[in-house]
Amino acid sequence: MKEPNALTLLLVPDIRLALQNDDEDFIQDVVCHLHAADLADILESLEEGERTAFFQKLPPQKKVETMEHLEEPAELILLLPQEEVIPIIESMSSDDRADMIKSLPEEFVESLLPKISLQERNDIKKLIAYPEGTAGAIMTTEYLSLPAHLRVEEALVQIRSLAPQRETIYYMYVVDSEGHLKGHLSLRDLVLADPEQRLQEIMNPNVIAMHVFDDQEKVAQAIQKYDFLAIPILDRQERLVGIVTHDDVLDVLEVENTEDAHKMAAVSPLEDAYMETPFWLLVRKRVFWLSLLFIGEMFTSSALSHFEHVLESYIVLVFFIPLIISAGGNAGSQSSTLIVRDMSVGEIGLRDWFVILLRESKMGMVMGALLGILGLGRALLLGTDAKVALIVMLTIMLVVTLGVLVGSGFPLIFRKLGLDPAVTSSPFVASVVDVVGIVIYFLVARAVLGI
Amino acid sequence: MKEPNALTLLLVPDIRLALQNDDEDFIQDVVCHLHAADLADILESLEEGERTAFFQKLPPQKKVETMEHLEEPAELILLLPQEEVIPIIESMSSDDRADMIKSLPEEFVESLLPKISLQERNDIKKLIAYPEGTAGAIMTTEYLSLPAHLRVEEALVQIRSLAPQRETIYYMYVVDSEGHLKGHLSLRDLVLADPEQRLQEIMNPNVIAMHVFDDQEKVAQAIQKYDFLAIPILDRQERLVGIVTHDDVLDVLEVENTEDAHKMAAVSPLEDAYMETPFWLLVRKRVFWLSLLFIGEMFTSSALSHFEHVLESYIVLVFFIPLIISAGGNAGSQSSTLIVRDMSVGEIGLRDWFVILLRESKMGMVMGALLGILGLGRALLLGTDAKVALIVMLTIMLVVTLGVLVGSGFPLIFRKLGLDPAVTSSPFVASVVDVVGIVIYFLVARAVLGI
Repeated sequence: MKEPNALTLLLVPDIRLALQNDDEDFIQDVVCHLHAADLADILESLEEGERTAFFQKLPPQKKVETMEHLEEPAELILLLPQEEVIPIIESMSSDDRADMIKSLPEEFVESLLPKISLQERNDIKKLIAYPEGTAGAIMTTEYLSLPAHLRVEEALVQIRSLAPQRETIYYMYVVDSEGHLKGHLSLRDLVLADPEQRLQEIMNPNVIAMHVFDDQEKVAQAIQKYDFLAIPILDRQERLVGIVTHDDVLDVLEVENTEDAHKMAAVSPLEDAYMETPFWLLVRKRVFWLSLLFIGEMFTSSALSHFEHVLESYIVLVFFIPLIISAGGNAGSQSSTLIVRDMSVGEIGLRDWFVILLRESKMGMVMGALLGILGLGRALLLGTDAKVALIVMLTIMLVVTLGVLVGSGFPLIFRKLGLDPAVTSSPFVASVVDVVGIVIYFLVARAVLGI
Repeated sequence: MKEPNALTLLLVPDIRLALQNDDEDFIQDVVCHLHAADLADILESLEEGERTAFFQKLPPQKKVETMEHLEEPAELILLLPQEEVIPIIESMSSDDRADMIKSLPEEFVESLLPKISLQERNDIKKLIAYPEGTAGAIMTTEYLSLPAHLRVEEALVQIRSLAPQRETIYYMYVVDSEGHLKGHLSLRDLVLADPEQRLQEIMNPNVIAMHVFDDQEKVAQAIQKYDFLAIPILDRQERLVGIVTHDDVLDVLEVENTEDAHKMAAVSPLEDAYMETPFWLLVRKRVFWLSLLFIGEMFTSSALSHFEHVLESYIVLVFFIPLIISAGGNAGSQSSTLIVRDMSVGEIGLRDWFVILLRESKMGMVMGALLGILGLGRALLLGTDAKVALIVMLTIMLVVTLGVLVGSGFPLIFRKLGLDPAVTSSPFVASVVDVVGIVIYFLVARAVLGI
């Protein structure tokens, strides 16, 4: 019995030692007891030379599986002799393989492809042609399709012979002679059926399918909604060309969630993890939004200089500027995160705009009233006169309400315009609220003080 | 062929009409063509009375599946007569059922339980006892376990008879007489094996398992890492007591990602979606952090009043306060999001602290220099004298560097202290930077102006 993860990395020093001492027994013992995902973790912790040495000790099938579990399989492929690489690539599952080939240098792929068997080569060419982010780019072509007239026992015989080349044999698809999808059934249905029945009698003709150019996030949501192990993917002519499996969905969701999280903090989405992203690329991804926000924020200087005369007579007003604008920004960033997140998991949509804005206005007034009272207390404690304290309280109420309206309104507007609501990042909301908040503050001040 | 989602909600008005006119044919047509997940969507769009009427027209098996796909099955259970509810509850999958029972009123459960068959009742009592967030709370007890001495063909016969009561028959577990897990195999292995072989010869003895009290997020990560359909769950005595399946993982990841997103925006995690959370509960979830941040931000007033004499002589310094502190806050919120997100998906950990802080210091200096120059330009454009422009530039450089260090350092410190790094929300980082940033600004100003 093993706990995942815990053991694996503890083994690395021992494996290093075993590689140095050529302790074949120890290495084979490790290899045959560990899951390919753990072997991939170990490979990633080894140095370049050790990595190839260890990989070459794996039995052929483990080589293929381990390659599929590596985060950057292309790196390892480039370290290995080409004649060793060919059989591995030919046996990899078609979606992992296509992903890997996309990150290999072009010249390398050109020298590699002619050596790969025709069938696999065509499969590779077809899959790498789909744009990133589509169903086509994450699907595998190794699905199981069977003709409708087959009897259950014949189907089981076919499955036995086809199983080794199929990513999953738990779902199978019934297609006609042109490749159009007619129904689906599961290995469970097959095992439970009378061996004499024909597939067309037991298949479910209500197949839920998606298309090669559909967004990968939509495909992931469908698999999640229906609890599928796999969903069939059709081409423009409605012919079955692949399936997306449940494990791909987890990867898609992780990538999409990370992208959303980054956008919400005004970072342009990264393709790799933080540590793998080169320094200057990370600078570019961050500086773009940071400068844009900075330029937007410059309007606060204009606003403040416009009210210079008020400031000069009541310098005490300055003390509450950061307090007021941050309260509005924080309340707004809460709203935008709540709305954007629920939009991205499909819990709320444009149709709910009225309810959302009504709810957030009330929310803003309640929270604004509370913070306003705290602000009043703070101003009085600091010894400011009652008029200024009143200005602070009124402004906080208004600015917090403004904040939640900006925070909830902008995602709705962006969605309406067909833009990604996640662009309504917390810093974006804060910038808008900072500028407008300052104007509100001094307008209230002028009104109360009568200047 | 159907696109998921698109059709479903368009059917609602027709279904309403059919219910009013008692158009049995139309309803049965809809029911037999739609997936239970879509029927659940339709039920959720109907009014109370229509909902029970439509549900009662479903055939028994569809009733069970649809109930499992509802977001709030407890609501529907309460609308139905108890004698109708009993057989549905008895047939629901054990994890969905336990979840549902936890949200039913206590008195209702007490009157319900005695009417449920002993075996199912014991299963319910066992599962609802596990605390929220543990593997035990999301596992199902409907797994397939077989003795090691069974031959493959005998196993297939057993599976045929057991399949209807099992959540998945694609993975099966070999246990000894005390319930200890000895190995696992898949239906694929079984279908490919020689019918005469015994399970012990073909099973994989290297089982990866987790425990009932393990965190659900760790279970989800393991299933994701190993691409499993299900992972076995053991009790304290290392006996097999359940499995967690791939579809539960998607739900867990969605909940955990939403929680993280909310924390990053300083909202205490919600249990339900935004629209389902009652107004005053939402107020409480938001006001807690908002007030805390507000109180923290009050130190900006103290800092500013401390430097009142500088302000009085150089009122122009006020114009740049929001610009400076927002630049630091934004840069810091980028850092904290990058670090927290990569920590939560396991890409970086405490061991990387030195690299992270070194990288972020460099990042802060580069971005600070760039924004500093923009700030200098802005100050000169506004017609301030060169000394003030210089102060603005220097301060922005320092505050941006401070921001990224706060943004990246705090998640590391929180992780080290055993706290959740996601508490380092953008607003939290901004508050710290606001207070310290103001102090830095006036210290630089005093030094440059010599006052």
